[in-house]
Amino acid sequence: MDGEKKAATIIVPKGFLFSAVEAAIKKPGRKDLALIYSEPEAVISGMFTTNRIKAAPVKLDMRRIRTGRGRAIVANSGNANACSGKQGMKDAEETAALVAKGLGLGESAVHVCSTGVIGTPMPMERIRAAIPRLIAGLRKETLLDAAAAIMTTDTFSKVVSRRVKVGNVTGTIAGICKGAGMICPQMATMLCFILTDLSVEKTALDTALKGAVRSSFNRITIDGDMSTNDTVLVMANGKAANETIKEGSPEFSAFATALSRLAFDLARLIAKDGEGATKLIEVEVRNARNQRDADKAAFAIANSLLVKTAVYGNDANWGRIMAALGYARIGLEEERTDVYFGKVKVARNGIATGKDREAAEVLKGKEIRITADLHIGSASSKVLTCDLTEGYVKINAQYRT
Amino acid sequence: MDGEKKAATIIVPKGFLFSAVEAAIKKPGRKDLALIYSEPEAVISGMFTTNRIKAAPVKLDMRRIRTGRGRAIVANSGNANACSGKQGMKDAEETAALVAKGLGLGESAVHVCSTGVIGTPMPMERIRAAIPRLIAGLRKETLLDAAAAIMTTDTFSKVVSRRVKVGNVTGTIAGICKGAGMICPQMATMLCFILTDLSVEKTALDTALKGAVRSSFNRITIDGDMSTNDTVLVMANGKAANETIKEGSPEFSAFATALSRLAFDLARLIAKDGEGATKLIEVEVRNARNQRDADKAAFAIANSLLVKTAVYGNDANWGRIMAALGYARIGLEEERTDVYFGKVKVARNGIATGKDREAAEVLKGKEIRITADLHIGSASSKVLTCDLTEGYVKINAQYRT
Repeated sequence: MDGEKKAATIIVPKGFLFSAVEAAIKKPGRKDLALIYSEPEAVISGMFTTNRIKAAPVKLDMRRIRTGRGRAIVANSGNANACSGKQGMKDAEETAALVAKGLGLGESAVHVCSTGVIGTPMPMERIRAAIPRLIAGLRKETLLDAAAAIMTTDTFSKVVSRRVKVGNVTGTIAGICKGAGMICPQMATMLCFILTDLSVEKTALDTALKGAVRSSFNRITIDGDMSTNDTVLVMANGKAANETIKEGSPEFSAFATALSRLAFDLARLIAKDGEGATKLIEVEVRNARNQRDADKAAFAIANSLLVKTAVYGNDANWGRIMAALGYARIGLEEERTDVYFGKVKVARNGIATGKDREAAEVLKGKEIRITADLHIGSASSKVLTCDLTEGYVKINAQYRT
Repeated sequence: MDGEKKAATIIVPKGFLFSAVEAAIKKPGRKDLALIYSEPEAVISGMFTTNRIKAAPVKLDMRRIRTGRGRAIVANSGNANACSGKQGMKDAEETAALVAKGLGLGESAVHVCSTGVIGTPMPMERIRAAIPRLIAGLRKETLLDAAAAIMTTDTFSKVVSRRVKVGNVTGTIAGICKGAGMICPQMATMLCFILTDLSVEKTALDTALKGAVRSSFNRITIDGDMSTNDTVLVMANGKAANETIKEGSPEFSAFATALSRLAFDLARLIAKDGEGATKLIEVEVRNARNQRDADKAAFAIANSLLVKTAVYGNDANWGRIMAALGYARIGLEEERTDVYFGKVKVARNGIATGKDREAAEVLKGKEIRITADLHIGSASSKVLTCDLTEGYVKINAQYRT
């Protein structure tokens, strides 16, 4: 369950090389430019922010992803290259072109991702200067460096890997991501790169990724804001030499399940590392009228600043959960609703059970489960979030200073 | 513009008496029970929270308001009497009955309002004990005491009054309210009581109140949470002896305008006194495709934690405003969008003007205007909010402790 521990024993899929350098996009002392390279051509699939304002590299990747093939991802932190006009697109294209040239690839085989401040021109002279070093540094062992180089306000790097058996072959999937703030369903300010040495058909990879994102990155929320840069890319390079995975096969099920679990583990790390967070909160709504209601209710609770500050303050203030349910615009009967912190039922049939003190003990933990049982249907929904602390305010009041 | 100053020269409408006492619902040393009494029977109109979970007194008032007539409002802070089941309704009814008995009124002439913690039983023995004192204390001069007694985390009491000339008669409208946290459109955790000595027909009063709330309390947002207890009540007792105001008359226009202005002033005080706030933020979206889009965009900006923390930190991070517009699900063309802090244009046609430093100076003020000009239509919308600070987190993490 603990991704930080897992990072120590990460398995790297075959045929991928990594590199990360200091390009001085961020303050000195931190790597801020990463490169992922697949030795064989890989099948590639991607999902992108639904924000109407999309960063230049997002627009570029959305175009390139249509080819279904790719070899490299170049990603920087420190600058989002968003709201950067035509120059922003030129800069994204140039970055890709420089990487393509250095690696001897066609330009369309290179994807570009950026994360950081919006509306500031890319420091292209520094990026140009850094790319030769970046390419020269490509190694099998440096996945962790790449994960570190895409961090912004993340407090730890996020890497997860797992083995997956398909037919007679055991392949590997590894993923790195960055999250922290501006995290909201329909993805977070997050970049996530998932790599596998399995061979997967393009349509199968698309389907598996869609399912994985739906049950992971689209179920976390930090502050309700949604970024201009969210990108998830998955590359499958076939180095494991399995028979190519096709949709509908038993191998597909195994692969899709593994991909979903890996994505969920990464999403969990993002929620845990929400800006300023001290606690991971898992909200579950049970027995809602329908799926839409269950999701709306779970997100209403998870996005409530009053709920999130109460958890931070170890205050079992379940009234705020009831209030959030009340404004979620869902089917709801106050006198049927139960609320739990962990296993402690704090409200039964909409009124207090008097167990606030036991619940306050539960809240002292680092991983808090909030359950609301609506007792009017059978749909349920889970959402991950974190508490809201002075740290969040500090980070975001001073982000650019 | 400054309600705190205005409070010093408040004009009290004729025929109303006020009282406030310490009933020990809150911690000692603070008045927490207030009474407003109209000597003549008043026409009464009300608007209530749209939260599906409604506090007992809200349910009671929603029933009683149908008579269109009232004499008294009894309001407590410290306990919301929400999620309190059948006992909660009994408690609200008993409170009203005790006041009615003490004043020699029918029970339905008394409205009840509560604000404070959700899910805790009302301390009825203390309320019972306090009501005789409360009634005995009724005076013309104690409007300010009543305003103080309904405060929760408010840092100053909110009182506004104005004269209004209708025909040959000059009447008075005064309003008190409490706000602070859980403030969201469709009203805030707010109680607001507006009193006038003018004579107004019931339907005219309803229409004027609806208009006033739409352009005031429904245009403020502190944290996106919506309370179980929001109530606005307006009483018109006719003591000014004007000809009864009817809808559609010139007198109605004068009255409705005055009521809207008074409500806006109160709403402004609520936004200014948002929990932990150091700055009032006025968000204006201009030239949106239509009204719905303009409202959605203004609220998306006003509810963005990233925007609110940036304002707190004097950081002209307009990219966060663009990002909020991007996820507002509105018609938007990035390359046409301009953004201003005060009069400083920080983004033109979706890209930086390089004036972040001038804008940061603007942000050092106490009242910040953010304008987004979408240049794709002609609809505009204004929303009031405040910055998000460590103070908000502190207040809400420790609210019940």
